[in-house]
Amino acid sequence: MPDAILDDISHRRYNPLRGSWVLVSPHRTKRPWQGQQEAASKIELPKYDPSCYLCPGNKRAQGDVNPKYDRTFVFVNDYAAVKEQQAEYDPPDQDGSLASRLLRAESTTGKCYVITFSPDHNITLADMPAQTILPVIETWTKIYTSHLDPHSPLAKAAEPTTLPPSASNGNLPHQQYRYMQIFENKGQAMGCSNPHPHGQIWTTTSLPEEPSLELQNLQRYRREQGGCNLLEDYAKLESEKGERTVFENSSFWAGCPWWGTWPFEIMVIAKEHKRALVDFDQQNKEDLAEVIAEITRRYDNLFETSFPYSMGLHQAPLSGTNEEIEASHFHIHFYPPLLRSATVRKFLVGYEMMAEPQRDITPEQAAKRLRDCGGELYRRKLQ
Amino acid sequence: MPDAILDDISHRRYNPLRGSWVLVSPHRTKRPWQGQQEAASKIELPKYDPSCYLCPGNKRAQGDVNPKYDRTFVFVNDYAAVKEQQAEYDPPDQDGSLASRLLRAESTTGKCYVITFSPDHNITLADMPAQTILPVIETWTKIYTSHLDPHSPLAKAAEPTTLPPSASNGNLPHQQYRYMQIFENKGQAMGCSNPHPHGQIWTTTSLPEEPSLELQNLQRYRREQGGCNLLEDYAKLESEKGERTVFENSSFWAGCPWWGTWPFEIMVIAKEHKRALVDFDQQNKEDLAEVIAEITRRYDNLFETSFPYSMGLHQAPLSGTNEEIEASHFHIHFYPPLLRSATVRKFLVGYEMMAEPQRDITPEQAAKRLRDCGGELYRRKLQ
Ligand SMILES: O=P(O)(O)O[C@H]1O[C@H](CO)[C@@H](O)[C@H](O)[C@H]1O
Ligand SMILES: O=P(O)(O)O[C@H]1O[C@H](CO)[C@@H](O)[C@H](O)[C@H]1O
Repeated sequence: MPDAILDDISHRRYNPLRGSWVLVSPHRTKRPWQGQQEAASKIELPKYDPSCYLCPGNKRAQGDVNPKYDRTFVFVNDYAAVKEQQAEYDPPDQDGSLASRLLRAESTTGKCYVITFSPDHNITLADMPAQTILPVIETWTKIYTSHLDPHSPLAKAAEPTTLPPSASNGNLPHQQYRYMQIFENKGQAMGCSNPHPHGQIWTTTSLPEEPSLELQNLQRYRREQGGCNLLEDYAKLESEKGERTVFENSSFWAGCPWWGTWPFEIMVIAKEHKRALVDFDQQNKEDLAEVIAEITRRYDNLFETSFPYSMGLHQAPLSGTNEEIEASHFHIHFYPPLLRSATVRKFLVGYEMMAEPQRDITPEQAAKRLRDCGGELYRRKLQ
Repeated sequence: MPDAILDDISHRRYNPLRGSWVLVSPHRTKRPWQGQQEAASKIELPKYDPSCYLCPGNKRAQGDVNPKYDRTFVFVNDYAAVKEQQAEYDPPDQDGSLASRLLRAESTTGKCYVITFSPDHNITLADMPAQTILPVIETWTKIYTSHLDPHSPLAKAAEPTTLPPSASNGNLPHQQYRYMQIFENKGQAMGCSNPHPHGQIWTTTSLPEEPSLELQNLQRYRREQGGCNLLEDYAKLESEKGERTVFENSSFWAGCPWWGTWPFEIMVIAKEHKRALVDFDQQNKEDLAEVIAEITRRYDNLFETSFPYSMGLHQAPLSGTNEEIEASHFHIHFYPPLLRSATVRKFLVGYEMMAEPQRDITPEQAAKRLRDCGGELYRRKLQ
């Protein structure tokens, strides 16, 4: 690394995607840890669990029965955080009063889905070869496509698609949503309450904070750098440098970003300008499946545990200005909490909440460790 | 509440202090919880623990021995995240290259302190009557004062003070720092690794993200509202409305802010314009001690457990422009993770990390519950 000194001194790094800073304290890994330990995950689950609401053929909370699906299955979340229909809310007039200035709210509607990644209850993405991750990517693409604003330039790029009945609208009138957040919480440490491999999709009439912040910075970079794309430039630079790379193939760079906050945070970035899932050809999709397999396997290998994380896709809004859609650039964030072992996590608490995110090991150190633990999944080697 | 409908529908609320939004899904509390449970805290600690590095008379990691203090004790953190001195770092030239644009870093130095709240190993702020919390506030004030830029308008308001030898500079040259973050992590769930009642103080040459964001919004409000103060206006409004109030006295309003993220988040706001601890008179300090006692006791009473939280003071930077210092307004944030019981927390994970913070119960519902659980500490009633 050119700035080897950053391996030893406290410093801040700038995140141009969020326009924010992170404090890096490399020497702090020497601190002894006497605090809370996570329970090490036990992987003694059955392939089929009759009490799991995600397993094929089982009954869910509201009485619906899952089909005997054999790859992925999508349905409307029985406990959705946003709903398609609700009572109207009229914000009070902006009459200059303190209340109208300081107590601001707006109604949000939307739709939340759950997507299972496999019929098997006892596996995770880390156990799945790339070709069985491909159907997950295809299902994400379908759901995204079927919610696109028909006037969006992206709608032209998309193949026509229909949603399965379990994900359909019922008799509700069609609403145009603004953004779709596809994500996965994996492991109890990340608030996941069912080990059956699954992710979520929340779709809202509003553009949420994080994608909104990123979009502003992506658009600014594009304007300031004569139409260049921040994340395309960044993936190119990192692929050349190599020191933060964990894995790459012809379509994606994956590594520990310069400005990462979580100890083993990874970003996956499309090497060419891809605005959203609909821009991917078959090769891109296969390459994405390979990257997801490589990352999740390395994560599990690192501490020989089922590695918890939250993962999410950022891409173009479902509806938006042409400038917003053109400035969007497909990428995935992996935020994993573990720091030192299967049981010792990094807490982003007091200082991090009140002042600024702080990390201990550097992204370069993290990337090296993740590069070095490729190969077969440790669980399989143990068998 | 005037907008009773917000009790039932999904909506977003605006945080004018951060300039950000939070998603509120009140109906979501009906969701059953099958995920991770926190260990319920056991309160069978000794009054003095010979192996605790914070107890009076004990030896610390680097060999220093704690004095037999009888109220608070401050010392330089043995595992500080920032140091007073380190090798120089020269950022590469801004030569227009991708690297100079996308791989930005800056050096940060600083000083980290630990402050114990009491010699007793087995109590917390919730167990302490207001008059024993007062010395904590006085110690915070001393540390803050002794780091003030001598040219700051605040330095004039401050009484001269000296630091105890355990917190002194040694022979290092005096550095002017930019910001001091005073905070407490309480409970294992919030990354605290020693139950002895204590907080931390991190002081840096840089202005961290959160106070920087708040300062920008405080300054903007002041300019746009003819010199009015956002948080003074807000405390006045909330004190009149009452529905989000948990406790108030002549100097402070404390309640669940309109835009809170954590289920039982509380803000304490000075009712008059106080820029920092040095602006407080004796009555203000006693009132602050009372507020802290009232909040921490109610928190413990809510689920009859030692309630985990991160808490932090926001006030004027140690050095800054006159405009920054005048726009600053003393307040405290309490971010507690519990949602439903002593063992079930709210996870701010996937959607919250990737898209937007999301909360289940409304601030009005939370405030009512906290208002209703005042009175004696549950542990004392059980005895
Ligand atoms: O310094 P402590 O209490 O050991 O550490 C705790 O607080 C720090 C400041 O919020 C965090 O960076 C650590 O992750 C947390 O475990
Ligand atoms: O919907 P789930 O998986 O039950 O819930 C989990 O993910 C949600 C979205 O990130 C969070 O709001 C919840 O706090 C978390 O427990």
